This record gives sequence, C-alpha cells and structure tokens, in this order.
Amino acid sequence: MSLPIFVLNGPNLNLLGVREPHIYGSTTLADIEASCRALAGELGYDLVFRQTNHEGELIEWVQEARTAASALVINPAGYGHTSVALLDALKNVPGPIVECHLSNPAQRESFRHHTYVSLAATGVVAGFGADSYAVAIRAAVAVLSR
Amino acid sequence: MSLPIFVLNGPNLNLLGVREPHIYGSTTLADIEASCRALAGELGYDLVFRQTNHEGELIEWVQEARTAASALVINPAGYGHTSVALLDALKNVPGPIVECHLSNPAQRESFRHHTYVSLAATGVVAGFGADSYAVAIRAAVAVLSR
Amino acid sequence: MSLPIFVLNGPNLNLLGVREPHIYGSTTLADIEASCRALAGELGYDLVFRQTNHEGELIEWVQEARTAASALVINPAGYGHTSVALLDALKNVPGPIVECHLSNPAQRESFRHHTYVSLAATGVVAGFGADSYAVAIRAAVAVLSR
Amino acid sequence: MSLPIFVLNGPNLNLLGVREPHIYGSTTLADIEASCRALAGELGYDLVFRQTNHEGELIEWVQEARTAASALVINPAGYGHTSVALLDALKNVPGPIVECHLSNPAQRESFRHHTYVSLAATGVVAGFGADSYAVAIRAAVAVLSR
Amino acid sequence: MSLPIFVLNGPNLNLLGVREPHIYGSTTLADIEASCRALAGELGYDLVFRQTNHEGELIEWVQEARTAASALVINPAGYGHTSVALLDALKNVPGPIVECHLSNPAQRESFRHHTYVSLAATGVVAGFGADSYAVAIRAAVAVLSR
Amino acid sequence: MSLPIFVLNGPNLNLLGVREPHIYGSTTLADIEASCRALAGELGYDLVFRQTNHEGELIEWVQEARTAASALVINPAGYGHTSVALLDALKNVPGPIVECHLSNPAQRESFRHHTYVSLAATGVVAGFGADSYAVAIRAAVAVLSR
Amino acid sequence: MSLPIFVLNGPNLNLLGVREPHIYGSTTLADIEASCRALAGELGYDLVFRQTNHEGELIEWVQEARTAASALVINPAGYGHTSVALLDALKNVPGPIVECHLSNPAQRESFRHHTYVSLAATGVVAGFGADSYAVAIRAAVAVLSR
Amino acid sequence: MSLPIFVLNGPNLNLLGVREPHIYGSTTLADIEASCRALAGELGYDLVFRQTNHEGELIEWVQEARTAASALVINPAGYGHTSVALLDALKNVPGPIVECHLSNPAQRESFRHHTYVSLAATGVVAGFGADSYAVAIRAAVAVLSR
Amino acid sequence: MSLPIFVLNGPNLNLLGVREPHIYGSTTLADIEASCRALAGELGYDLVFRQTNHEGELIEWVQEARTAASALVINPAGYGHTSVALLDALKNVPGPIVECHLSNPAQRESFRHHTYVSLAATGVVAGFGADSYAVAIRAAVAVLSR
Amino acid sequence: MSLPIFVLNGPNLNLLGVREPHIYGSTTLADIEASCRALAGELGYDLVFRQTNHEGELIEWVQEARTAASALVINPAGYGHTSVALLDALKNVPGPIVECHLSNPAQRESFRHHTYVSLAATGVVAGFGADSYAVAIRAAVAVLSR
Amino acid sequence: MSLPIFVLNGPNLNLLGVREPHIYGSTTLADIEASCRALAGELGYDLVFRQTNHEGELIEWVQEARTAASALVINPAGYGHTSVALLDALKNVPGPIVECHLSNPAQRESFRHHTYVSLAATGVVAGFGADSYAVAIRAAVAVLSR
Amino acid sequence: MSLPIFVLNGPNLNLLGVREPHIYGSTTLADIEASCRALAGELGYDLVFRQTNHEGELIEWVQEARTAASALVINPAGYGHTSVALLDALKNVPGPIVECHLSNPAQRESFRHHTYVSLAATGVVAGFGADSYAVAIRAAVAVLSR
Repeated sequence: MSLPIFVLNGPNLNLLGVREPHIYGSTTLADIEASCRALAGELGYDLVFRQTNHEGELIEWVQEARTAASALVINPAGYGHTSVALLDALKNVPGPIVECHLSNPAQRESFRHHTYVSLAATGVVAGFGADSYAVAIRAAVAVLSR
Repeated sequence: MSLPIFVLNGPNLNLLGVREPHIYGSTTLADIEASCRALAGELGYDLVFRQTNHEGELIEWVQEARTAASALVINPAGYGHTSVALLDALKNVPGPIVECHLSNPAQRESFRHHTYVSLAATGVVAGFGADSYAVAIRAAVAVLSR
Repeated sequence: MSLPIFVLNGPNLNLLGVREPHIYGSTTLADIEASCRALAGELGYDLVFRQTNHEGELIEWVQEARTAASALVINPAGYGHTSVALLDALKNVPGPIVECHLSNPAQRESFRHHTYVSLAATGVVAGFGADSYAVAIRAAVAVLSR
Repeated sequence: MSLPIFVLNGPNLNLLGVREPHIYGSTTLADIEASCRALAGELGYDLVFRQTNHEGELIEWVQEARTAASALVINPAGYGHTSVALLDALKNVPGPIVECHLSNPAQRESFRHHTYVSLAATGVVAGFGADSYAVAIRAAVAVLSR
Repeated sequence: MSLPIFVLNGPNLNLLGVREPHIYGSTTLADIEASCRALAGELGYDLVFRQTNHEGELIEWVQEARTAASALVINPAGYGHTSVALLDALKNVPGPIVECHLSNPAQRESFRHHTYVSLAATGVVAGFGADSYAVAIRAAVAVLSR
Repeated sequence: MSLPIFVLNGPNLNLLGVREPHIYGSTTLADIEASCRALAGELGYDLVFRQTNHEGELIEWVQEARTAASALVINPAGYGHTSVALLDALKNVPGPIVECHLSNPAQRESFRHHTYVSLAATGVVAGFGADSYAVAIRAAVAVLSR
Repeated sequence: MSLPIFVLNGPNLNLLGVREPHIYGSTTLADIEASCRALAGELGYDLVFRQTNHEGELIEWVQEARTAASALVINPAGYGHTSVALLDALKNVPGPIVECHLSNPAQRESFRHHTYVSLAATGVVAGFGADSYAVAIRAAVAVLSR
Repeated sequence: MSLPIFVLNGPNLNLLGVREPHIYGSTTLADIEASCRALAGELGYDLVFRQTNHEGELIEWVQEARTAASALVINPAGYGHTSVALLDALKNVPGPIVECHLSNPAQRESFRHHTYVSLAATGVVAGFGADSYAVAIRAAVAVLSR
Repeated sequence: MSLPIFVLNGPNLNLLGVREPHIYGSTTLADIEASCRALAGELGYDLVFRQTNHEGELIEWVQEARTAASALVINPAGYGHTSVALLDALKNVPGPIVECHLSNPAQRESFRHHTYVSLAATGVVAGFGADSYAVAIRAAVAVLSR
Repeated sequence: MSLPIFVLNGPNLNLLGVREPHIYGSTTLADIEASCRALAGELGYDLVFRQTNHEGELIEWVQEARTAASALVINPAGYGHTSVALLDALKNVPGPIVECHLSNPAQRESFRHHTYVSLAATGVVAGFGADSYAVAIRAAVAVLSR
Repeated sequence: MSLPIFVLNGPNLNLLGVREPHIYGSTTLADIEASCRALAGELGYDLVFRQTNHEGELIEWVQEARTAASALVINPAGYGHTSVALLDALKNVPGPIVECHLSNPAQRESFRHHTYVSLAATGVVAGFGADSYAVAIRAAVAVLSR
Repeated sequence: MSLPIFVLNGPNLNLLGVREPHIYGSTTLADIEASCRALAGELGYDLVFRQTNHEGELIEWVQEARTAASALVINPAGYGHTSVALLDALKNVPGPIVECHLSNPAQRESFRHHTYVSLAATGVVAGFGADSYAVAIRAAVAVLSR
C-alpha cells in the first residue's frame, strides 16, 4: 500500500481565519485539513497534516517525509523566504514536493517574491486561497501517477 | 450557460514534444489540448485552446477573453518575462486568470524567475509538465465555484 | 503644403474608456482622435491617427512617419518600456517626436519609470489624461514653428 | 475671480541664455516670463513668476501656492533631483502641479533621470526648450478646465 | 481592568551585561525587568517580561499577545533582521507595538540597518541603552492614552 | 544651572496639522511646542524650540547647540534624508542628540528609510505622531541623567 | 545535397543605408544579400536571406531553420536584447548559429551589451560593418566543415 | 586541566552519508565524531560533539561554550548563511572559533558564499569533506598553543 | 590686471579647528585665509575668500565667479556630495576650477567617495589637510599660466 | 609592402590542447599558428604570432603593434576581463583590432561576459574554437581592404 | 616516490614580519618555509616553496605544478582577488589545491571577500596567521591520502 | 641628508605625448621628468623617476620606496584601478604618498572613478595635465615639512 501524503504547514498558519483575512480568507486550518483529508482519501491516499511555528520542527518533519511519505505538500509560510536549512532538508526528499501558498507572492512585498523552497520543489501552486491545498494535492498525485 | 474557459499558449509551444524534451517532456500541444478538453467537459465548461508566436495576437486573444471567457489559463512562454503590453491586456480581464508553466521557473535561468503575467494573475501553477494544464484548469474552476 | 502630424498608439489603447478607468479615465480613443483632429486642423495640419497591438506594425508606422509626417506624437503604451526595436525605428525620424502618456509613469510601478522611447524623443508630455494628446500636439507644433 | 497661476523657477535659471546655451538655447528667463504672462492672460489667468537659488525660499513659495494659486508650474532645476523637502512641500498643494524642464532629462546624465518632484506632480512637460513653459501652462489650464 | 504590557526579548539578551559590554553596557536583563516593572506599575499596567533564544517561541508569545496584551514592546535582537515569520505574527497584534533596541542600528553593520519588525511596528525606540525599554514603555502608554 | 534642551524642526513642519493629516495627525507645531515646554519644565530644563525651511539655518542652529544646549532633539524632516552638511554639523555636538520622527519611516517610501542624521544621533524615536517629541525629550533626559 | 544557409535579419534592417549611417555605413541590405549570396555559392551553399520587423515572424523563420537550414546566421537587431521568445526558438536549432552585428555592441549603450541570442549561439561576429555578414558565413561554414 | 573542545553541528548534518552524497560523501556524522574524538584525545583535549536542527538550541550551546570550552569548532550548515542571532552568540565566545564546512561554499549557489559565522570566527576550514573536521581541530589547537 | 582668485568654502568650515580635529587638524579657517592670501599675492593675484553654510549663497558666489574671478578654488564640504544645483552653477564658470578637500574622501564613508563638483572641476586636490588650499591655488595658477 | 598582422595570445594559451579540452578542444597553439600563417600568406600578409603569461609583456607587444603591424588580432584570455592597462595600450593602435575568443564568453561565468579589450576593438569574433583565429584574420583583412 | 608539495606565495609576502604586523604577525616568510619543510618531511613529502611579486611568474609556477607537484598550497595574496588568468592556470592542476590566507578575509575590506582562486581550489584555510600554512599542508595530505 | 622623492609611473606612460593627446597633451614623460627634477632640486630633494609596464616591477619599486624614499608620488595609470597587490605594497610605505593623475578620473569611464591606490595614499592630485606632477611634488614636500 502507498505511503501517505504529507501536508506540512509553517509558522502562523495556526491563526488562519484570524490573521489578515483580507489576504487569506476566513477558512481555518482545521477546515483545510478536513477537505484535504477527504480529497486524499478519494484519490487513494492517507494524509498526514501538521502545523508548527518552529523551523527546527518543520525541518525534522521534512526529514521524516523522506522515508515516510509518497509526496510532500508544504506551505512554508515565512520560513520559505528565509530558511536555507529547510531547503537542505527538502533536497533529501525523493518523492514529489509541491510548494503551496494561499496568496500569490508576486503581488506582495518584494521579500516574498523568492523562496528557497522553490529550489527543491517539483512545482508550485499559489494564489487560490484555501483551494491551493486541494490543487496542490491533485498536482502531487498527478506526478505520482506518471 | 457558462462562457468557455480560454487556454492560451505563447511562442514556441507549437514545438512541444520536439523542443528541449529533457525540460518539457515529449507530450505534444495537441495531446494537451485533448486532455484539457476532456477535463473541461467533465467539469461543465467548453474550451477555447489556441497557440501563437505573435505577441500582438496573444494580446488580442486576451482582450477577447475579457468578455468571452469564464476564466483564462495562460502559458505565456517567453512573453511572460518581457511583455508589459501583455500585462496591461490581462489587467482588463475580470474573471480568474491562472498562469501556467510546464517547468518550475525558479530552477532555470534568472531571467525566468520573474513574469509580468504574475502581477495580474489570480494564481500560478508551475512545474508539473503537461499536467500543469489540468491542474490549472481545476484551479480556475475552483475559483469560479466559490 | 505641410505633411500631416502622425499620432500613433500602442497596445491596449483600443480599450481606452474600458481599461482601468481609475487610472485612464472614461474617454475613448475615438473621442481623443476627434479632439486631436479638431485641434490639428485649427493649427493647420492634417492628422494621421492609428492604433495597433502589434510591435512590428508600430515599428513600420514609425518608419513610414520618417518621410510622411511633419511630426510624430507617440503613446507607445507597454512597448515603450521594453522595445529597443521601436527606439531604433524612432532614431530614423528627422522631425520632432513627442512621447505622450495618459498617466504619470513616475507614480506607477518601477518598470514604468523608464522608456526606450524617451531616448529618441524631442520631449515628453505625461500625466494629463486624455488632455495629454492635445498638449503633445501643441508641443509638436511649437517645435515645428521655431 | 480665479487665483493666479504660479510659475516657480529653481537654481541657476537666472543665468538662462548664458548657461550652457547648446543645451538650453539663448532665450532669457525674462523672455520666458513675458511670453508666459501673455499666454496666461489670453487664457484668463494672472501670473506669478519667480526665480530663486535658495531651496528654502523655493519651499516657502510652494507653501504659499498652497492657498494663493490656481495651479503651479515648477521648473525645479537641480533641486528637483535631490530635494525631499521640496517634495513634501508640493504634497500640500491641492491644485494641479506641472513639472517643467527645458531639456529632456532622459537624454542627460543618469542622476537627472529621476526627480522627487514627479512624485507629487499631476504631470510632466520636458524637452521643448523655452516652449516647455507655454506647453506646461496650457496643460495646467486643461486640468483646471475639466 | 487593562490587559498587561508585554515586553518580549529575543536571542542572546539573557547574556546582557556580559555580551559586548562596550556596545550594550553592564546592566543585566533582570535589572531592566525590575525597572520596567516599576515604571509599568507607576503608569497603571501589569507587565509580562520574557526572553527566549528560540524563534518559534518568540512567535508564539507574539501570538499570545494578540489577545492577552494591551501593548507589545519587543526587542527582537538578531531575529528582527531575518525573520519574516516573526513579522507575520506581529501583523496579527491589534494594539500598539514598539520595536526597541539598546544600540542605534544605523551605526552598526549594514545587515542591522533593516528589520522586518519595523514593517509591523507602530514606532521604534533605539540607541538609549537600557533606558530604551523605559522610553518604549512610555511610548506604548502614550499611544494607548490617545 | 543646566543649559536648555534644543528642539529643532526642519522643512514643512510649520504646516503640521495641515500637511497630509492622514500621516501626521491634526496637532499643530504650536501644540507640540506647548507640550514639550511643559514636559521640559517638569523635568527641570528650559526649552529652545524652532522651525526653519532653510537647510543653512538648520545647520547654524545645530552649530549653536554645540555650546548652548544640554541636549538636542531634532526632527530634520526632508533634510534628514539628503543633507551630508547637516550630518557634519551634528558631529560637532557633544551632548545627546535624539532624532525624532512623527511617522515610522520604515513604512513609507524607500528613500525615507535612511537618514544621515542617524549616523550622528545617540538614538532614534519614530512613529508615535506628536507624542514622538515627548518621548524623545524623556530619552534625552534619561541619557543626561546617567 | 546540403541544406541552404539561412541569413535572418530583424527589425529596421530594411532601412540599412538610411538609418544612422555614421554607425552602420551606407551599404543597403540588398547589397549585403548580393555579396552573401555570392560568397555562399562560392562555398557551396544556397542562401535564404530574409528581413522582418515582426518578432513572431522572426521566431517562425527560426523554427523553419530547425529542419530546413544547414546553418543559421542571425542579426536580431533590437530583438536580440529583449526577446526570450527568440532565444527559446533558437534553442531548437541543431546546426551552427552565428550571431551577427554590424557595430560592436560593447561600445554602444549599456542595454545593447547583452543579447539573449548569445545564450544559444555557437559564436558571435560583431563590429565589422557590412563585412560582418561575410565573416559570419565563413564562420558558419568552418563549423560545418569540422 | 584544559576545558574540552566543542564541535557543534547545525541542521541536516544528522543525515550525513544519506543527504546529497555526491556533494558530502558517504561518511556518517557518527564516523566523524569517532575520528574527532580520537584526534582530540591525541592532542590532549576532551571533546563535546553535538548536532541539532534547532537554531535556538545551537545558540544556547554556543552560549554554553562561552565558559565551558577551550575552543569551538562549528559547522553551522544552513544557519550559517541566515542567522544573525547565531553570530551574536558567537561574539561572546572568548576562545578560538573555527568555522568548518564539508564542501567549498564558493563553488555552490551564491547564497552560500557568505556566512554570518565568519564575521566572528578566528578562521575558516572548508572543502575537505569529512577531513575538514580534523583539519579544523588541528587549527583550533594551533591557536590555543600560541 | 588679472581678476582675483576666488576661494569658496561650504558648510561647517567655519568650525575648522573645532570640528573633528582628529580628521581636520587644529588650523582655523582664518589661518588658512591668511596663508592663501600670502601665497596668492606672491603669485600675483588678489584673493576673495568666503565661507557660507547656505547652499543658495554658495551657488550665487559661484555665479559671481563666472565673471569676476580668474580661477575658482572650492571646498564644497557636504554640499559637494549632494548638490546638483551647485554643479549646474559651476558649469558656467569659464576659468579653471580646483576642487579642494582637507581629508582624502576615498578613505571616509562611501557617501563621500563621489562629488558632483568633480564633474565640472578642472582638477582635484585632496588629503593634505590645511595645505590642500595652497596646493590648490598653485594648481590653479599653473593652469592659468599655460 | 604591407606591415605584418600581429596575433597576440595571453595567459595559459600555451597550454592549449591540454587545458580544459571539453571547452577549448585538442588543437595546440602551434597548430593554430601554422594555420594562421598559411591563411595570412594566402591573403598577402606576414604574420607575427606570440604568446605570453605576463601582462606587462602583452602590453609592450601591443605598443609595438602600434607602429609595426597592419592589424592586430588579440586573444587576451584572462587579462581581457581585468586589465585596464591593456585597454590603454590598445587605444594607441591605429589599425584594426580584432578581439578573438575560442569559446563564447556569454555562455560561461558572469565575470567573463565583459572585457575591457572590447572597448578598444574594432570588432569581436568568439565561439568558433580554433577556427576563431582564421575568422578573425579574415575580418581584419576585410577591414584593411575597405 | 611521490612528487613534492608546492607552496606558492604571491605579492608582498616577502615583506612578511614587516608589513602590517597588527594583521599578519611578526613571523617572516623564511620562518614559515622552515616549519612547512619540517612538517612536509614528517608527512613524507618534499617541499617546493617560492614567492613572487609577478602575476605572470605565479601563473607559470602553477603551470609547472600541473605535472611536477602532488598538491598545491597557494597564498595568492592580492592576485587572488583580481586574477582570472591565475584561476585559468589553476584549473589545469589535477591534484588537490589548498587556498591559504593568513588573515580571515571575511573580516577585512569587501573587495577581499571574494577570490577567483576559490573557484578552482579543493578547499580553503584562512585566519590562523602563520599556522594557516601548516594546517593547509595537513589538509592537502589528507586529500592525497583518501 | 634627506632621502630622495620617488616618482613612479605605471603602464603606457612611456607613450605620453603619443597616446590620446586630446586627453593627455603632447608633453613627453622625459619632459615631465626634467621639470620634476628641477623642482625637486629647488625644494632640496633628489629625485628617482621611473616608468614600467609591469605590475610586479611597480610593486617592487614601491617596496624599495619603503626604506629608500622620503616621499612617494605615484601615477599608477591602469594598475591603480585593478591592483589590490599594489595597494598592499603601498600600505607598507611610512612616508607621504601622493596619488597623481594627468586627467580627472571622475570625468572619464566609470571604471576609472575608483582606485585602490587612494585607499593608501595621503592625498590625491588629479586633472592638471603634466602640471599634476609638480603640484604633487609640492604637496608631498608640504606634508614632509609639517
């Protein structure tokens, strides 16, 4: 049987639905987890869904995904722009990696235009709000299905 | 009944399956059109699928999409990085715009890291090869369904 | 008798009155043509007034202006910021060239702060909305009258 | 009855007709004042025309224009490129502001390509030699007439 | 009754009085806590005073301040210059935020001239050594008192 | 008896309460002078409070402060960003210098992110509106009291 | 028998002999075509010689050269500096590509110092006026002869 | 008796021998610890050898080294390039600090060319694979022996 | 008889002997004036020696030098680095202009490495302390003597 | 009779055929000299062909070419990118100068994209391997034949 | 029997012990040669130890090391920062290359932060004063022993 | 008795009077040597006057000046802009160093605006043609006379 899909979330995403709703919408992270779990099941995969505010913990979850996940969907939030250490962890993951953002970084401050994560990711999905997660899971499964 | 989804393709995509297959794979643009058409139908939308090597023609198709399309998926290819005129055309489109790339631009030459298109796009899908189109259409429909 | 004044318009200006009215106002390009024609007549000149979304066509109209126009007023729109080929065409025009913009580029995105056109233009008129055209025609005639 | 139009001139313009005539021509500032006054009268406005080499004095005249002028035409000369304080003064002026240059700054040294003044100006007129003033006054009146 | 004022301290401030005393002086963090507590009491506020070397913990304390503090004084130390994640946390805090530094960053290495924290802070107090904290608390209370 | 505290104000601050009130509030400079004078008296200091739009005059007042002031609070306004001459004057002042801004420069245009004044100032207080002055005076007195 | 050598010319080269003769000389493009045709014949190759002002047409000719030419000599003129789409077309051409310029770009404006074309070209010949074409054809044949 | 030498390792080094072996080789961190311990013993020093993926923990170990170590060898991995907080911790360490890298950063991506650690380190050893550790320990002892 | 040599001094030079003596030495401006006057007399020239803290006044003295001086020695102090207006004034001076600095700007902060004055000056003398003036006068006379 | 053509070679070209053959091919410099000598003879010129690893010697040979050569072909190798002194020597050479490179610098490291030599060269030939020399000699003779 | 280790020293290192002793210490180059020779002998290698102030000579010694040395230790001094020609020579050396510096370049002027040498070196040792040489020789031997 | 003054000249100055006379004039280096020798004698110093095209030789002459010269006047020509090695040699010279240029570098190409030499020089004299040498010798003697 296939390994699960990991969906890992970085800092401040625990505040989703509260934090800057004009940018991110009012859906909570629990809402997203529920719809991701439903979609993954429909596509034949278990789901591991986690959030942390700690860079070290995010790195260790990525290390865990190296052997325990079919594919990795990651919304690195603020750490995507600043963490070379996260990039180094991602480079060890053999399966598909989908970088996922709620908003479109190209339309925000210039320091959000670049992520280290994109240097290791198979692909990127950004700008569709809470729908970005479902789109990203479908993209990951499309790559797994080749 | 809904307006169709437009899928517009920029320069050199007519060579798909021939051009740099180590980057873009061997699927042809006709193959992609066929699978896009199938998926759109399944999701309840007609599809307009076109390719051009002419910047002016691409701009005029985008102007046409302003009133004739529910949503616009655009793979601008080389014009995405250089055309302010294309950006200005896109800013007039009221429906969702999904920027779509076969490869992940962040892992190619630095002049491919930025597109003017992303300044007007609702969101971006990049890096999943020919699957990027299907993922982009699903993303467009997700936005239309909100 | 004098050669006419050419007024050439670049991409997306056919949408004027529709496109981003909070920036460009609701006057259409046909309205502008009419008032330009009236003013030129009053000042003793015929008018050639055209718009295109194609860079190559704009270049060829500028080449035509080289021998067929007394003066050239050009609103290059998006091509002004990106087209070295347009600059090269303008350098062959012996009469006065007036670069004309509806909005004030210095107050918009940084990639609009520079135009290649200004390297060949006699002068620049920008920021007066639809009135920029009349002001530009008067400026061209002032240069011709020296 | 309307308030007058202010035409304010920055440093070294008192030398006009003497200073670098290959760039600025041989017309003196008094000549320009005379033709501006005639044109303003023809258009129904009084004119206040001044020149100073002192940044502080220029700022105070701009402050005066805030309540005493219908519109402001300003040739800031060297202070346009370097004075944030002048920009701050201009931001308080409610009427139209026309930035005016004799030469086309885009064709001179790179430190002349940017002015702080343009961040507060309604529009810009540049490159028509002494005629720039008349063109600028017409542009100001066009804005007042909307 | 009012919520307390939070004073949060970032990495290495536990070494205060030991670390580079020629820059930061010999006062310890406990000394500062004591005088802050006295001043806050005098001004009618409780005080929460904490220090951590962990970015994730600092982020979570800021998230806590979102609902549990009247105002937030933060000396982010090294994380101020590098943490987008900390900025994102601060943007959720509704009350006044005062960024506080012992030294004047403009007089140190260039990578200390910019902080992400300042993009979310109401204001900044820097350069007064241990007195910066008291000045910052007074500034926070002044904002609360408006 | 102690020398007075100098509070020096740069260009356009005479318009306070009028100029861009959405950024600076509606308090006038006379209001600020009154509350500064009250606070200084309470803390045992006379106050010299002045404003000028002239860079040279501001420099000469700073030179005067060198021997006639206990401490200097300076809101350089636009000259802070552009005047090396002002920096050179400030470097001669032996007592504490507090740079003071109404708004938080880090949240405005990029040309306001740097001041030459900060290279000579003991410390900086910014972003608290009219309260910045009182906070700055307290900071100056804290330094004097060490 | 061998395929012909393609010599493709970009925008404004139709004006050769007219346009800026102090830079490009008075030879016309027809003169160059004649001498290229003679040289190619002498070296045993047919010649296809074309000029266009349209970027899309130039791209399509390059696509044609992919299967119909032994070698490609291209003078991209203004499009060489700005067209990523042209670069992408060139990357599909299997035979030798010689980039050819009349003038030496390193001695002109800085925006002419870089071409996208050079990223796909086998080699470059620049600066020999109309002779650059003959030199480029010889270089192409030298590569074909290895 | 002398204090031990600390060898501290940053994020992802726990994956050594697994992670990108074409860059870092197949030796594990346990192998390196063993050979470091042997060498240190031979040179008369105890060894403290640790690895963490958490920036805060690495900072606290450096703080511990301030009083508990003769010398510090640190391979900061990804945190070396991004952590001002780590630099601030290192500045408190009185003994020799040797920055140690397995690969030669100058030959990798540009964001690896600079480390904050090098601003506090006595010296640097880089590029010798697993041997870098032994070389670094010898360098540290050489400095201690002066 | 020859016109005098003008020696013009910019802001803060009235503090010479007081201001940062570790950089500028203890000689006063009056001392320098005396020795300049002696040297000029010896070389057969009258001397006009002035100092001002006002940019506008400095500009007007330069305008005066245009017709009233044989040669101009100018120590622009802080205005040299920031004043385009001063440069524009200097460009009208027909005789030799010697830019003169007490210290060597290349060894001070980076914003002192460039002066606008040097774009109009015949030559530069810098770094010899108070002796720079005498050296500059000799250089001016050498140019006059050709 | 005509003066000879000089072909001057810079550092490390003595290793040709040994050095990085995947970039430069296996032809030796003696092979190139032989074929250059044959071609020059065929075109009616003697040849002077030299190589040096010393910048000063290369400069002196260029000085010699000033009066002793009809034309100069120079492959400056590494000194082309770094030597202003070589540029200054080349500026004295009245005849045609052809800069010649084996590889296409635009496709190598960024520090090879610019040469000082190209600021003095009539034209450039690059990217044709050992054939670049023959192409360059033909280009030089074409210029001489005008 | 093994080939010797080459230790090559660039410009001004003949002044070691004299030149800037606060940075480099008082050990002379002869002292370093002696201790290098002892260490090499102990490790079973002969030593070739040389110094030159001439870039061309340094390049030729590196060329010699290509076939005559087991390993190369090079302290390029000033030429390391500026010589592309030296880099090209080093790229031909098949054995290990250790770049060696007395001081830590990251803590000196910014133009010393980068060396071309590091693009060809196996590894780098820097910052341990005269001990850097011994550390570098041990590093070279460690690489040879793999 | 005093040591002589060294006047050292860098590359291409042997061509003086021939090389680019519109910039440097027609005086030869022998003329300059003669007038320098006369002036030095008049001021009581012997003169050592040399020119070389070799960077290494220039460095060794500077090393010689360390103990054999009272003062050093150096016109480094092209090496001034590129040689860190020359800077390092100059830093060992204890007496006054005067950097001397015939032309004013600020008015030439941007790569001539900076010299490494100026980081070690006491002062700079530039722009007075052949007179720069005499002015520089006087400046050196003025420093020696303090």
